[in-house]
Amino acid sequence: MHYQNPISPLYTDFYQLTMGQAYFMNKLHDQPACFDYFFRKIPYKGGFVLLSGVQDFLQALEQLAFCKEDLDFLQRMGFSDEFLEFLRRFKFRGSILGASDGDIVFPLSPILRIEGTLFECQLIETLLLNIINFQSLIATKASRVRFSAGNRILSDFGLRRAQGYGAVMASKAAIAGGFDNTSNLLAAHAFDIPAAGTMAHSFVESFESELTAFRHYAQVFPDNCILLVDTYNTLKSGVPNAIVVAKELEAKGFKLKGIRLDSGDLAYFSKKARTMLDMEGLQYVKIIVSNQLDEYVIKSLIDQGAPIDVMGVGTSMIIGRPDGALDGVYKLAWAGEKPRLKISDNVQKTTLPGKKIVYRFLDADGNFYADCIALEDEPVPQRMIHPFEAEKSLSLNDLQYKLLLKPIMENGKMIIPTQTPFQLREIGEKEFASLPEEHKRFDFPHIYKVGISEGVTNLRADLLRNYMKYS
Amino acid sequence: MHYQNPISPLYTDFYQLTMGQAYFMNKLHDQPACFDYFFRKIPYKGGFVLLSGVQDFLQALEQLAFCKEDLDFLQRMGFSDEFLEFLRRFKFRGSILGASDGDIVFPLSPILRIEGTLFECQLIETLLLNIINFQSLIATKASRVRFSAGNRILSDFGLRRAQGYGAVMASKAAIAGGFDNTSNLLAAHAFDIPAAGTMAHSFVESFESELTAFRHYAQVFPDNCILLVDTYNTLKSGVPNAIVVAKELEAKGFKLKGIRLDSGDLAYFSKKARTMLDMEGLQYVKIIVSNQLDEYVIKSLIDQGAPIDVMGVGTSMIIGRPDGALDGVYKLAWAGEKPRLKISDNVQKTTLPGKKIVYRFLDADGNFYADCIALEDEPVPQRMIHPFEAEKSLSLNDLQYKLLLKPIMENGKMIIPTQTPFQLREIGEKEFASLPEEHKRFDFPHIYKVGISEGVTNLRADLLRNYMKYS
Repeated sequence: MHYQNPISPLYTDFYQLTMGQAYFMNKLHDQPACFDYFFRKIPYKGGFVLLSGVQDFLQALEQLAFCKEDLDFLQRMGFSDEFLEFLRRFKFRGSILGASDGDIVFPLSPILRIEGTLFECQLIETLLLNIINFQSLIATKASRVRFSAGNRILSDFGLRRAQGYGAVMASKAAIAGGFDNTSNLLAAHAFDIPAAGTMAHSFVESFESELTAFRHYAQVFPDNCILLVDTYNTLKSGVPNAIVVAKELEAKGFKLKGIRLDSGDLAYFSKKARTMLDMEGLQYVKIIVSNQLDEYVIKSLIDQGAPIDVMGVGTSMIIGRPDGALDGVYKLAWAGEKPRLKISDNVQKTTLPGKKIVYRFLDADGNFYADCIALEDEPVPQRMIHPFEAEKSLSLNDLQYKLLLKPIMENGKMIIPTQTPFQLREIGEKEFASLPEEHKRFDFPHIYKVGISEGVTNLRADLLRNYMKYS
Repeated sequence: MHYQNPISPLYTDFYQLTMGQAYFMNKLHDQPACFDYFFRKIPYKGGFVLLSGVQDFLQALEQLAFCKEDLDFLQRMGFSDEFLEFLRRFKFRGSILGASDGDIVFPLSPILRIEGTLFECQLIETLLLNIINFQSLIATKASRVRFSAGNRILSDFGLRRAQGYGAVMASKAAIAGGFDNTSNLLAAHAFDIPAAGTMAHSFVESFESELTAFRHYAQVFPDNCILLVDTYNTLKSGVPNAIVVAKELEAKGFKLKGIRLDSGDLAYFSKKARTMLDMEGLQYVKIIVSNQLDEYVIKSLIDQGAPIDVMGVGTSMIIGRPDGALDGVYKLAWAGEKPRLKISDNVQKTTLPGKKIVYRFLDADGNFYADCIALEDEPVPQRMIHPFEAEKSLSLNDLQYKLLLKPIMENGKMIIPTQTPFQLREIGEKEFASLPEEHKRFDFPHIYKVGISEGVTNLRADLLRNYMKYS
């Protein structure tokens, strides 16, 4: 398949296995545990994260197994024979309550709640973080670009600047986040995404003249011809030559699909080119632009009335610039029948203990209003408390709600349907529509309220007091 | 193998194949061509780039072939039968003159010069850019971190925040850039890199007390025990408990290897912990730190005298923060027996035409002094000209030089030996030692001089004049 499939269980941090052997030798590996996946900071100084990669993670879990090559390697690393025999028979059999691809999520709320044995829950940490942190980072960036671009066509042109093989999943996440097609042919093949592409400057340079290059390309692809017009001089040479070829195609019953601008001021050149094309009755010829686009440049081009039909977005989207990473973490919430806590000098890094669920409260219009993290066995919260400032609270009386976390894996089996990237995009668009506009703003977006219930507040306080006694 | 191997030729931009078919149908695919790989901007506001990924790229080229699944897909995409038959028989048979992994390289200089048929040279563009841009980005970041860290041990802890499967090659590039080991077990296995890792907070929390957790871990790994001491309270609980376990290990004839700090002020805590350990005669216990480290934080910790032995570096290194991409490009320099040029309104984006080589001139100490890009058939330059400001030039009289580009692939066969990541690291360290200190500075490093010969200057001017006539 298109990248290593199934993913090797060695695709993890070494310490997952050293801890695993320590649990195993101490006969703690089988005790029930519960971990939460959540993040602390929204990338891009934004107001939301579009969740992505959950389905891929669940599929990887279903197939997770140690093959002989893996075990031989671990034996050479010095792991014990009993533990290796345990690994040989290992299969992930845990259950997961979680949000799904396309959900809009916010800091601090558990996004996935993984339950199983201590060993299996611990083992999968790195795999989860590697897949979901990355895909959510990219899908979120793509959704921001989509938000800027309105209904213009968005093409992923990122492969050449992507972080190696990560590009394949990034191109998929770009579609889930709102893109229309990709230049990445392997991703197009693997995930059934339309492929996009035209020509490079080198193509134009390879012929004796620009017009010759255009004519030869049009001859080979008469019904799918996009001409790159900025190799020599956009307005004096590129666009006039494209007009010549458009007329020649018309004479043969074809229509030039578009011209592409890849340099210079894209607002200026697109306006000039549009006028030149329109004066020749070529209103149907689309204008495609690329070159260092991101959500801000696109917004500015559109604000200036640039008549652009298709935008190719590369580096900035495919690597999630400028953050490059979502800071998602995976923390123990419960083990050995007891809630667990990690204390930090910084209260914001002290974890939320216990088995939790998330109520997403809705306003009168059915839009997202606030998320409340609660214990699974307490009544529906009527008030939520600020997670770090106990004196602040918010009434939730009489508000409708839905549960953010739903069963998505049971005893190692994924129990949600597999969706194509475009189905995921549709789900995401629907969720995004329920997010009030002020959270979508690029500059200082309104911070979505995430609070904790009385139950969580009290449990955290109890455990903190208890640990303080001993320190 | 460890990721898709061989890499599919579909791992490319769609337009490489549309252009390919257009060349093929116009019988231009076989004309000789020459392309240059170079970059324009050094990432991290730095003074150099450490080249990485060349060897992986050459190995990918050697194996590049279209399988039946690829061809069936391309047929469904509408490519012509003749072209598909041509692809079925395709093998890269070009030759490459290039710098190698471990070389220190600078903007504008050709780093790889690819010669072959127009089709084969064009086809491999995306693969080259995807592999070498990324690995050089990471190796360069790693070398900056190494420059800060002196001879302290550096561990790659990045997998959980890496950009998906890109992590595997990033962990390799980290070693080439100067790291000592990795937490990424798959990379450790694939490239024979030592694996590093200890325990997570969840391990400590899973036991009834921190001391119990430490004891159990020490019992399983008595000769390789590193204890994470910041789960509850570093100085009141973590370090004292680690000291207890260290004494217990001593009684059994073992030595505690280290303690790890993952939060709080690492200078403050490492000093306090060092003092506490030393007072108990535990001078041999190492201090390992992690948590948002990069070259700047490490420099500052060391400047403040923090007694740190091992540094775990994650996100910032593994994604090459803040740039996240090297802007390497691939441009046609020669086709159909003629030098070729891409013109841009911005003179800095006009390409350098012709078949070129790079003289690296050395100062009296044998250190790197300046790089001069020259035509392969002109005499050794005695003076080089600023690439964009013709009135500036630099005398090269009587300076020793070496050639940066050497034959690395001939007729599709890699002709340099395959090196392990640690061999590449050694090569890089040797090269780095010849780079004058002022180019290694983090803040406003001295800009290394790269100029062009009289031959390149004149050829560019001639071609520009020629194109201007027609526009």
